[in-house]
Amino acid sequence: MREVTAGDLDLLAIGAAILGTGGGGDPFIGKVMAQQAIEEEGPVLLMDPDELDDDALVLPTAMMGAPTVMVEKVPEGMEAVRALRAEERRLGRKADATSPIECGGVNSQIPFVAAARARLPVVDGDGMGRAFPELQMETFHVYGVRGTPAVVADERGALVTIETEDNFLLEWIARGVTIRMGGHAMLVDYPMSGAEFKRTAIRGTISMGIAIGEAVAGAHKLGVHPVEAVCAATQDTIYGRGIPLFEGKVVDVERRTREGFAVGHALLQGLGSHEGSQLEVRFQNENLVAIRDGQTIASVPDLICLLDSERATGITTERLRYGQRVTAIGIPTPEIMRSEEALKVWGPAAFGYDDLAFHPLERGFANYYGEHGVPLEKEKYLKPSPRP
Amino acid sequence: MREVTAGDLDLLAIGAAILGTGGGGDPFIGKVMAQQAIEEEGPVLLMDPDELDDDALVLPTAMMGAPTVMVEKVPEGMEAVRALRAEERRLGRKADATSPIECGGVNSQIPFVAAARARLPVVDGDGMGRAFPELQMETFHVYGVRGTPAVVADERGALVTIETEDNFLLEWIARGVTIRMGGHAMLVDYPMSGAEFKRTAIRGTISMGIAIGEAVAGAHKLGVHPVEAVCAATQDTIYGRGIPLFEGKVVDVERRTREGFAVGHALLQGLGSHEGSQLEVRFQNENLVAIRDGQTIASVPDLICLLDSERATGITTERLRYGQRVTAIGIPTPEIMRSEEALKVWGPAAFGYDDLAFHPLERGFANYYGEHGVPLEKEKYLKPSPRP
Repeated sequence: MREVTAGDLDLLAIGAAILGTGGGGDPFIGKVMAQQAIEEEGPVLLMDPDELDDDALVLPTAMMGAPTVMVEKVPEGMEAVRALRAEERRLGRKADATSPIECGGVNSQIPFVAAARARLPVVDGDGMGRAFPELQMETFHVYGVRGTPAVVADERGALVTIETEDNFLLEWIARGVTIRMGGHAMLVDYPMSGAEFKRTAIRGTISMGIAIGEAVAGAHKLGVHPVEAVCAATQDTIYGRGIPLFEGKVVDVERRTREGFAVGHALLQGLGSHEGSQLEVRFQNENLVAIRDGQTIASVPDLICLLDSERATGITTERLRYGQRVTAIGIPTPEIMRSEEALKVWGPAAFGYDDLAFHPLERGFANYYGEHGVPLEKEKYLKPSPRP
Repeated sequence: MREVTAGDLDLLAIGAAILGTGGGGDPFIGKVMAQQAIEEEGPVLLMDPDELDDDALVLPTAMMGAPTVMVEKVPEGMEAVRALRAEERRLGRKADATSPIECGGVNSQIPFVAAARARLPVVDGDGMGRAFPELQMETFHVYGVRGTPAVVADERGALVTIETEDNFLLEWIARGVTIRMGGHAMLVDYPMSGAEFKRTAIRGTISMGIAIGEAVAGAHKLGVHPVEAVCAATQDTIYGRGIPLFEGKVVDVERRTREGFAVGHALLQGLGSHEGSQLEVRFQNENLVAIRDGQTIASVPDLICLLDSERATGITTERLRYGQRVTAIGIPTPEIMRSEEALKVWGPAAFGYDDLAFHPLERGFANYYGEHGVPLEKEKYLKPSPRP
């Protein structure tokens, strides 16, 4: 158990923007809410899943809906706590901790808002270890935790409690409620025991998000290129080391809204050792597939992150612009995300890529990076880059 | 308290189709569900509001959504009971009775399904005394009853509990949930005490629905024209006697779906003593305004009912066809529906007729029907009509 400071949340925002793989929403507004809540209510403790009693009650908290709307319709601040208290009333029992369901994007921060306001610790782990668009895209779902009772709360005090044994139906109904509530709302779902959390969660993702943020912020001081620092930050975790995939310039972005999702692709024209090559990154909120010169080199659920080539900050889908210098990296997802039952929920086919089998990033593309998955450009990334 | 038979439900279906004023859905499928429930579970008692203890708990039950969808996606039968049981759990207390929220259309029957399955009596009264499209269009709302906690239940076992102090927001969210549930669902809302029911409900509307059905079915036997029999059926109630407005032939129907409502108008070309005149009836699910030769002669919340000219059965908006011989009648709505606060919710302006003030049918249009609101065509309606 350790205390989380406002500074940690700054770093987490940087890391979570990368773990968002293009989606999940800019963590900024969540960070401001969390920092304000901690300032007003006092510090929040981050606990290791192993510190949870088996029969503890964990109530995960999250934002649901369009993060872009949060900028215009700012949350009131107590929504997640109201959802949490309503869930406690429904279950007839007090929560022992909250947790993220999604460590990428804005949802890395929301549990800290709820935790500060409700005086609860945050468990260091989540249900996807990245960002995904839908409520059934959770290890909690894949490994048998029921998503409901779930509670959706809006800024006007409305509370909607959803009960169903079908986690897909939960997503479908909660999405409809969120739309009616004005585009986003706060959510408690997958209420579970400590034992269930320990069995199904992806562990240590909040700590890892902070570590990635530290890598980005501290790389220059260590004389390491920030992109390399990001790749190294996941090396000793359940994820495996990040792999630079491509360096280039954004030459085309197509993005449209389809059924509430931002769907499209970005095209990178190679620079440096990738001169003459092209990388296409296709997304549905999150980056789904990376295709180099017609060949797929990475796909969900592995993390495909587009980073600013100089500073290694994550670039969300809605911030992609012509002319940006971008480095695409891949981060191998933990094994718990790659089981057969897990790939049914978030493998390429779950996003419409029916013919594309999932190949682990660090093995399938060894031909690009040598026998051991070491990037050919490694030397480059180990050189310190000029300060901006 | 009296027992309601399958035969009563047949008559109620006829009466409720007329009280539906063009909307509310064909009561047929609700009737079949209610008759089956009574056959399987035993009789249902209909109780007078005065028989309710002040501190009794009344949980009204209803169908919400598009009645037309019920024909294709047939309810499973236990939805309303599941909603009722969930509401009881939420309130921590057993219901003493159920009631309609809407006595027009299919929702006249749904409480009998719930009552039979849950072994509860039905209170003889509702919240609008006709049909209206939205959940805040209830005397319960107008006179201060909170609409929530409300529970929406689908045929797959999903339950959604909505809590808000804003009855308009209840309508907005519940509508979204209903759409996500496939177009219709069952609902418990406006949980209230016996005292609240007695203070706010429109009383005796189920009995009146049955009486109207009896009038339609029994008129020939009594040697009275069925249209006149319908008009007479409400004479000794809080509604006042029905007034024939126009007899004609349908020469034009325009109907389109806008935001989930059936919006449009029907044009009648006068027959008999109305030869040379036209009546336009505008509707949004329910008939809203009747305009004779350019002059408004009836409007919501008074009931504008289009009846088959021979048999006096109610014609719903979706069943209007070119060439039908139709008699339009108006039924004065009870005074509780005409207060200033009530007209704000369902007066002409609530449906977009901003310039149209409400005039009570039986007073505003005396010029058409003589000093005492007696129809000029009375003789005609007192003649027996040939059997079909």
